[in-house]
Amino acid sequence: MRVKLIAYTPEPEKVCAVSAYTSISEKGPADRFEEYDSKKGEKVLRHVVGYGHHSVIEHASFTFAVEGISRACSHQLVRHRLASYTQQSQRYVKFKDLDYVTPAKIEANKGTKEIFDNTMKQLADAYQKLIDLGIPPEDARYVFPNAAKTNIVITMNARELLHFFKLRCCLRAQWEIRELANRMLIEVKKVAPVIFEKAGPSCVQLGYCPEGKFTCGKFKEVVDAYKSLEEDDIEKLSKLGD
Amino acid sequence: MRVKLIAYTPEPEKVCAVSAYTSISEKGPADRFEEYDSKKGEKVLRHVVGYGHHSVIEHASFTFAVEGISRACSHQLVRHRLASYTQQSQRYVKFKDLDYVTPAKIEANKGTKEIFDNTMKQLADAYQKLIDLGIPPEDARYVFPNAAKTNIVITMNARELLHFFKLRCCLRAQWEIRELANRMLIEVKKVAPVIFEKAGPSCVQLGYCPEGKFTCGKFKEVVDAYKSLEEDDIEKLSKLGD
Amino acid sequence: MRVKLIAYTPEPEKVCAVSAYTSISEKGPADRFEEYDSKKGEKVLRHVVGYGHHSVIEHASFTFAVEGISRACSHQLVRHRLASYTQQSQRYVKFKDLDYVTPAKIEANKGTKEIFDNTMKQLADAYQKLIDLGIPPEDARYVFPNAAKTNIVITMNARELLHFFKLRCCLRAQWEIRELANRMLIEVKKVAPVIFEKAGPSCVQLGYCPEGKFTCGKFKEVVDAYKSLEEDDIEKLSKLGD
Amino acid sequence: MRVKLIAYTPEPEKVCAVSAYTSISEKGPADRFEEYDSKKGEKVLRHVVGYGHHSVIEHASFTFAVEGISRACSHQLVRHRLASYTQQSQRYVKFKDLDYVTPAKIEANKGTKEIFDNTMKQLADAYQKLIDLGIPPEDARYVFPNAAKTNIVITMNARELLHFFKLRCCLRAQWEIRELANRMLIEVKKVAPVIFEKAGPSCVQLGYCPEGKFTCGKFKEVVDAYKSLEEDDIEKLSKLGD
Repeated sequence: MRVKLIAYTPEPEKVCAVSAYTSISEKGPADRFEEYDSKKGEKVLRHVVGYGHHSVIEHASFTFAVEGISRACSHQLVRHRLASYTQQSQRYVKFKDLDYVTPAKIEANKGTKEIFDNTMKQLADAYQKLIDLGIPPEDARYVFPNAAKTNIVITMNARELLHFFKLRCCLRAQWEIRELANRMLIEVKKVAPVIFEKAGPSCVQLGYCPEGKFTCGKFKEVVDAYKSLEEDDIEKLSKLGD
Repeated sequence: MRVKLIAYTPEPEKVCAVSAYTSISEKGPADRFEEYDSKKGEKVLRHVVGYGHHSVIEHASFTFAVEGISRACSHQLVRHRLASYTQQSQRYVKFKDLDYVTPAKIEANKGTKEIFDNTMKQLADAYQKLIDLGIPPEDARYVFPNAAKTNIVITMNARELLHFFKLRCCLRAQWEIRELANRMLIEVKKVAPVIFEKAGPSCVQLGYCPEGKFTCGKFKEVVDAYKSLEEDDIEKLSKLGD
Repeated sequence: MRVKLIAYTPEPEKVCAVSAYTSISEKGPADRFEEYDSKKGEKVLRHVVGYGHHSVIEHASFTFAVEGISRACSHQLVRHRLASYTQQSQRYVKFKDLDYVTPAKIEANKGTKEIFDNTMKQLADAYQKLIDLGIPPEDARYVFPNAAKTNIVITMNARELLHFFKLRCCLRAQWEIRELANRMLIEVKKVAPVIFEKAGPSCVQLGYCPEGKFTCGKFKEVVDAYKSLEEDDIEKLSKLGD
Repeated sequence: MRVKLIAYTPEPEKVCAVSAYTSISEKGPADRFEEYDSKKGEKVLRHVVGYGHHSVIEHASFTFAVEGISRACSHQLVRHRLASYTQQSQRYVKFKDLDYVTPAKIEANKGTKEIFDNTMKQLADAYQKLIDLGIPPEDARYVFPNAAKTNIVITMNARELLHFFKLRCCLRAQWEIRELANRMLIEVKKVAPVIFEKAGPSCVQLGYCPEGKFTCGKFKEVVDAYKSLEEDDIEKLSKLGD
C-alpha cells in the first residue's frame, strides 16, 4: 500500500492553540492569530489534548491519498463516519487487470499462496469473460474478491484521527487496516508533533488496556513501539501483531 | 434479499408534528404531546415537510433487519454516514457455505450464469482449503467475492431516509441498492404515510430531474410508479431500470 | 425544568442485542428478532456495552420533551452535534411574558435575588416597549437574557446519551445542564436498564476520574450517588456540586 | 463583526479535483496529485459541483476567526452540526465590559436606541454587582443579553459551506447571520473560485426559489447581487433584506 499526506491545514497546531485561547479569554481569535507565540501555544495545546478536551483539534484537517489497499480494508475504513472519502468505483472503471492484496499468512506458505494466486487468476478470467459477453462492469465485478486493490482519498480531522488510531493501531485490529493507520500516524506526526505526541492504540493513549479479557497481552511492547515512530518502524509494528 | 422493519419511533408523525409546534409557539412539547390532535398535526407536518424544513423529522427513527444483500451493496450502503449499522463480520464468522447474490443480467443468460456459478464454487473451495490449512477466517475471506451475502441492521432517521431514497431509488443507482431502497420505502410508508408521502428518487421529490445529461429519460414513468407503492411493485420498479 | 421521555425505540435492548448477534453469527437479524431470548440477550448486551463496543446501542433512540430550561443551558446543549433538536424560536414567537430561570446561588441571597428580579423586570419592560414601537420580535429579543426560558425537543441515541452523561453529569458541568442530564438519565434507566446500568459522569463509567488536577475530589460520593438513581435523587445530586 | 479566514486546505480545488478523478479511473490519487493539470482539473470540478455530486468537495476545509457577533447569532450558527466550533466561554471568562450588538432597526430610531442602550447599561451594572457580591461568572451571566458579543472559531468543509450559504444567505435568514454568511462567502470565493462559483442562497444555487409562499419576492435582485461579490458589497447585500 502507498499512503501519502497530500494536504493538511497549514500550521495546524497554531490554528488549534488559537482556538483553545478563544474559549477562555476576552481577546478574539483573529488578533490571537496575528500575535501568536508558538512556545506558549504548544504548552496550551499539550495541556488541552492531555486532558482529553479534543474539540479544539477538530480545526486541523488532514487529507491522505491511499493506493493499493484491499476492498476488505476499505470496507472497514469507511465505517468511520466522521470523515470524508472518495473511492475508486468498480461500477464505472472497467479494469484491465485484477491487482490484489495477499495476506502475509497466505504469502508465508507455498501451498496457500498457490491456492490464492490460482483463485485470483480464475477470478480475473471470469471477470474478463463476463465483460466480453456483454455484462456491464458493475455486474461483472460481483466476482471480484475482497482482496482486489482499491484507491481512496481520506480526509479526517485530528480528533477523529486520534479516535481512529485508538481502534485501528490496536493489535486486535486486522493487520491491513493497522498498517494503514500506522502509516497515517507516521505522516501526521511529522506535521503536528504536539497533537499526535501520545497518539497510538488505546493502551498508548490511555496508559492501560481497556480490552479486558480480549487484551493482546503485549502492553509493554506496544507502548515502547510507539515511543518514537518512524517510517522504518512499519515492519516492526506489523510483526508485533503476529 | 429480505428487508424487515423491526423497530421505529412509536407514533412517528405525532412526535415530529409536536416538535414542529414547539418551534413556533409558547406552549411546551410535553403539554402538546398530551393534547395532540392528529388531524391538525398531520396538516402541519405535511406543510413543514413540503417546504423542505426537514430537521423536525429527524425525531423519527427506523430500524431495519436486512438479510442477504451482497457485500457490493453493503459497501455502497455504509457510505451513508448519518446512520447506524451493525454488519455481519467476515473476520469473526467462519462460513460453512458461500451464499451469494447473482446479478439479473448474469442470471438471464445460460453462458454467463455458468461462468458465474463455477467461479463461486471455485471460491468456496479455495476458502475452505485455506481454512483447512490453518489460515484464519479474516485472511481466508480475501478470496470471497463482492457477491457474497451479508446481513446488516440499519437505523436511519426520516430525514436521512428521504435523502437516501433520493439517491438510491434513482434509476442511475445500482439495481441492488435500488431494490433495497424501494423495499425500505414500502416499509416506512406503512407506518409514516404523511412523512413519506412524496418520498422516492430525486425526480419524484423535486418534480424534475436534476441529473442533466445523465438523466435516465424516464421521468414520467418513474413519477407514475411511485404514486402508489406496494410490496407487489418491487418487480415493476426493478424492471424500470432495465 | 420539566423533562419527559415522549418516545423511544420499543424494546430498545432487544433491538440492540439482536444487532450485536448479527455481527458475530451466520443467522440473520430478522430471524434472531423473532426467536429472541431476553435473558441471553441481556447478557450479550451487558458484555458488549461493558467493553465499550458502543456502536450497537446506536440503534436505540430516545426523544425528550424539555420545558423551561434557560437559553444559557440550551446553548450548551446544542453543542452536542450527534443529536436532533427542535427549539422554540425567539424570532417567530412574540412573548407576552418573560419567564426565566434563577440560579440557586442568586436565589439563596436576598440581595442578589432582588438585583436579579429587578433586572428581569427591566428587560421584560424594554422588550415590550420595543415591540410597541414596531421593532420585530427577532430584534427586540436582543435584550432577552441568557436566563430566558426555552422549550426544546431532543432526540439522542443510546451511544450519544452515554457520552452526554459522561460530560454533563460531571460535577464540573454547569448545575443547570447537570440537572437536565440527571433527569434524562433517570428517564432512560426506566426503559433500558441494562444499557444505562453504569451510566453517569466519566468517573462512574470509567471507574476513575480523568480530569487530573481539575477533579472535583468527590469520587466516592459521586460513585455512590449513581448506584441507584431515582426521581427523588435529583436534589441530592444537585447538592453534590455545591 | 470581523470575519477572517485564518486557515484552509492548501490548493483546495486541486485536492478536490484529484479526488474526483480517483473515483473514475485506474490511476491512483498520489500519482494524480503529482501530475495535476489545473485547467483540466477545474473543468472536472466545475462539472462535478454543477451536478450536485458534492462529496468530493468535503476534502477542502476552511477555518474562520469570527469576532463580535451576538450570542443570538452564535446560537443559530452552532445548530449547523457538520462543522467544528470553539466559542468564547461566558462561564470561564469574567467580563470587564459588556460589548453588545445593536440591531439596525433599533439603531435607526432615537427612541428605540435609547431604550436599548439604557437596558444594556442596566444589565452590565447588574452583572458587575452580582460578581461583586460573590456570584460566580457562570451564574452572573444569566443576566447577559442575546445581544452580548462573542468570539468563535468555525471550521466547515466546502460541502457544508454550500449548504450553509443556501440557508443563511437567504433573505429569510436573520440579518446578522446573513451578514456572517456573506462575509464568509466573500472570503472563500477568493481562494476557491470554482467551487464557490455559484454559491449563495438557495435561489442562486438552484435557479429558482424553493420557499413557495414564503418567498421574499426578490429573485432577480438576489441573483444579480451574487453575480460578482466583493467586500464592498456587504452593505448592499444587507440592504436587500430590508
